[in-house]
Amino acid sequence: MSYLKQITSPTLLINEDICRNNLKKMADKAKRHGMKLVPHFKTAQSHEIGKWAKDYGITEITVSSIKMAEYFCGQGWDNIHIAFPFNPLEAEKLNALAKNQRLSVQLINVAVAQELNETLENPVGFFIEIDAGYGRTGVEVSDFGLMEAILRTAKKRDVLQFKGFYLHAGHTYYEPDKARIYAQTRAALSMLKNKYRTEYPELVTRTGDTPGCAVIDNFGDIDEMGPGNFVFYDMMQVNLGSCKVEDVAVALAVPVVDIKKDRKEILVHGGGVHLAKDVLIEPDGGKNFGEVVWLHENDWEIPLQRSFLKSISQEHGIIKASDDLLARVKVGDVLGILPIHSCMTADCMGRYLSLKREWIDHAEQAY
Amino acid sequence: MSYLKQITSPTLLINEDICRNNLKKMADKAKRHGMKLVPHFKTAQSHEIGKWAKDYGITEITVSSIKMAEYFCGQGWDNIHIAFPFNPLEAEKLNALAKNQRLSVQLINVAVAQELNETLENPVGFFIEIDAGYGRTGVEVSDFGLMEAILRTAKKRDVLQFKGFYLHAGHTYYEPDKARIYAQTRAALSMLKNKYRTEYPELVTRTGDTPGCAVIDNFGDIDEMGPGNFVFYDMMQVNLGSCKVEDVAVALAVPVVDIKKDRKEILVHGGGVHLAKDVLIEPDGGKNFGEVVWLHENDWEIPLQRSFLKSISQEHGIIKASDDLLARVKVGDVLGILPIHSCMTADCMGRYLSLKREWIDHAEQAY
Repeated sequence: MSYLKQITSPTLLINEDICRNNLKKMADKAKRHGMKLVPHFKTAQSHEIGKWAKDYGITEITVSSIKMAEYFCGQGWDNIHIAFPFNPLEAEKLNALAKNQRLSVQLINVAVAQELNETLENPVGFFIEIDAGYGRTGVEVSDFGLMEAILRTAKKRDVLQFKGFYLHAGHTYYEPDKARIYAQTRAALSMLKNKYRTEYPELVTRTGDTPGCAVIDNFGDIDEMGPGNFVFYDMMQVNLGSCKVEDVAVALAVPVVDIKKDRKEILVHGGGVHLAKDVLIEPDGGKNFGEVVWLHENDWEIPLQRSFLKSISQEHGIIKASDDLLARVKVGDVLGILPIHSCMTADCMGRYLSLKREWIDHAEQAY
Repeated sequence: MSYLKQITSPTLLINEDICRNNLKKMADKAKRHGMKLVPHFKTAQSHEIGKWAKDYGITEITVSSIKMAEYFCGQGWDNIHIAFPFNPLEAEKLNALAKNQRLSVQLINVAVAQELNETLENPVGFFIEIDAGYGRTGVEVSDFGLMEAILRTAKKRDVLQFKGFYLHAGHTYYEPDKARIYAQTRAALSMLKNKYRTEYPELVTRTGDTPGCAVIDNFGDIDEMGPGNFVFYDMMQVNLGSCKVEDVAVALAVPVVDIKKDRKEILVHGGGVHLAKDVLIEPDGGKNFGEVVWLHENDWEIPLQRSFLKSISQEHGIIKASDDLLARVKVGDVLGILPIHSCMTADCMGRYLSLKREWIDHAEQAY
C-alpha cells in the first residue's frame, strides 16, 4: 500500500533521500573547508533523523532549549550545545542533565554566568555568543570588558568550561550581500581567536546560519559550522538562493475539500496550525504560504505551472491554482505543500511520515 | 507556593476569572437576543474550560476538525459541530464517532454530500455554509442551484440531516464597518430561512465571528451564534475593538535572559514556537508580537507604560521596553505576554497553567 492511501488529514511528509542528500552535501562542504559540522537540530528535532546525520560523520548537535536537549540526551551524541542565551531559571535542570551527557551553553552576561557557577556541580562547556551586526542577541564584538567579566566569573570554579565564540549571522536572511556579512563574521571571529588563544589554546569559533553556510565558500579560519534549516530547507531558503525547490525535504500533505473553478481556487484542509504562518511575498504583492507539489508513490513532483497557498487561517488553506492543477484535481485528492519555514511546520506537526510509510519521531510541543 | 515559583520555561497562563467573565458576558448577550450560543472550541480546545462553559448554560460546541471532535466526544455535549467544509477522506472516521455522539458537519459541494451519503450508517446533521462576501469558503448566497443539489443528495437517504445555514462573517477581522457586514449577514440568513423554512420548518441560521458577536447589537432573526476567540480574546481583538486589554484571559509567561539597557531591549525565552507568528503593526510601522504585563501572585497587571515584543524568532523574543520596565526588571524574572492571536498560541503550547497552580488540558497537536 502506498503512503498516500493512509492519508486522511494534514500529514507532514519527509523524503529521506532528499534529507540525506542535504546532510551529505553540508557534511562534505564542512570537510572541504576543514570545519566541524554541528547541525542545529531545532529543525528536525528527531532521533531518527539524528541517526541519518550520524551516517555522514556528524557526532555533535545543537538545540535551542534545555527541553530539546533533554529529548536528545542519551542518544550517543558527543556533545549537545544549547544555542540560546542560557535561562538562569533552568540551572538546576542543566546540572541534572550534565551528569550523564556532555553539554554546552551560550553566555552573554555575567548574571547568568554567576548563577551557573553557583548552581552547577557537573561541568558544562560554554560559548560566548557574539553579535557582529545581527542585533538579536550576543555580546558586541568590541565589548572585551563584558567577555572578560564572563571569563573571570567562570574561572572562579572549574564547572563552566570555556569552549569559544559562537556567532549567528542571522542577517543573511534579509541582507542580499552575504559575502560582505561573512567577511565581517570571519574578521570578528578571527580577531577574537587571536586575542584569546594564548590563554585558551583549545578555543574554537563557530558560525551557523543556513543561507551563509549554503552559499559562502570562504570561511577563513572559522572552526565549526552550525546551520539547522539545511536539513530540510524550505521555500524561504529557495527564495534566498540557499537551495533549489528540489532540495526541500518535507511537504505537508493536505486533503482537497472544495474547488472553485471560476475563482481558480482550491480549498484544502491545512492552515496555520499545520504550516505556521511564515509567508513570502509574491512579485505582485500577494502572499504565499507554501508551494503546491503533486504527490506520487515514491516522490513528489514540482509542477511546471506554479500553484501556491494564497491565504490560510487556523485550519483552512486556499490555493491559487494553475489551469493545469484545476484541470486535474478533484475533491478528495491529496496535494503536497512545500512549507515556507520548515522548522516551524515540523514543530507544529510533531511527527513525520516517510514515503516508505514509516512514522518518524519529532520532539514534543514547546511547553 | 505561588504559580510563579514553578515557572522555569515558557508557560501559557490562564486567568480563570477573566475567562469565566468572557463566557458569562457572551452567554448573557446571546440570551438577551434570544439566540443559542454554540462557542467555537478551536480556541480553548479544553475539557476543563468546557466545564466552565457549561456553568453558563452552554450545551453544544463547535470544533474545526474531526480530530478535535474526537477529543470532545463523550464529554456530555448535546452536539459537536465540525465547522469546516467536510473532508471526504474522513467519512469513515465521522461515521464511527457518530455512533455515540451527536455531530454535525458543514457541506459546500455535492461531491462530499454524495460521499457521506454513501458512507454514513449513523445519522449526522449538516449545515450548508454560506459565503456572503468573506470569500474564504461556502456556497455563494445566491447559488440556490448548488444548495438544492446538496439538499437533494441528502434526501436520498436519511443519514444526512439538514440543520440550517452557517455563515462565518470573517471579514469583520479586517473591514472596519462591522454594522454593514452584519446587515448583509442578517439579510442573507433571513432570506435563506424564509426561502427554505416551509420545507424545513426546524432549520436554524448561525453566524460566528468574535468581532461581530462582541460588538453588534442587531442580530435580526439569526438563531444561533458561534464565536470562538471571545473565550480568551487577545491583542488582535483589542485592536479590533472587540474587547479591552483587561479581557484577555491568557498570557505567556517568559523568562528574562538578557537586558540591553542602552538599546532598551529585553531578551526573553519565548518565540514563534510558543506564541505563533501573528503580528500587529504599531502606528510607527514597527511590529508587535505581544504585549508585556507584570505577573503577580493572583493576577497580572497592565503597565501604565507599554512594552511589547518587537521581534521574535523560533525561540527568541525581543521586548521593546519602557523606561519603567527597564528600571524594574532583572535577568531571571518572569514577564507575561498577552498574545496577538490566542487560538494559535494555545495550539502551540498545548496546555495551560491556572493562577491557582492547576494544569489545564488542551487537545494534542495538529496531526
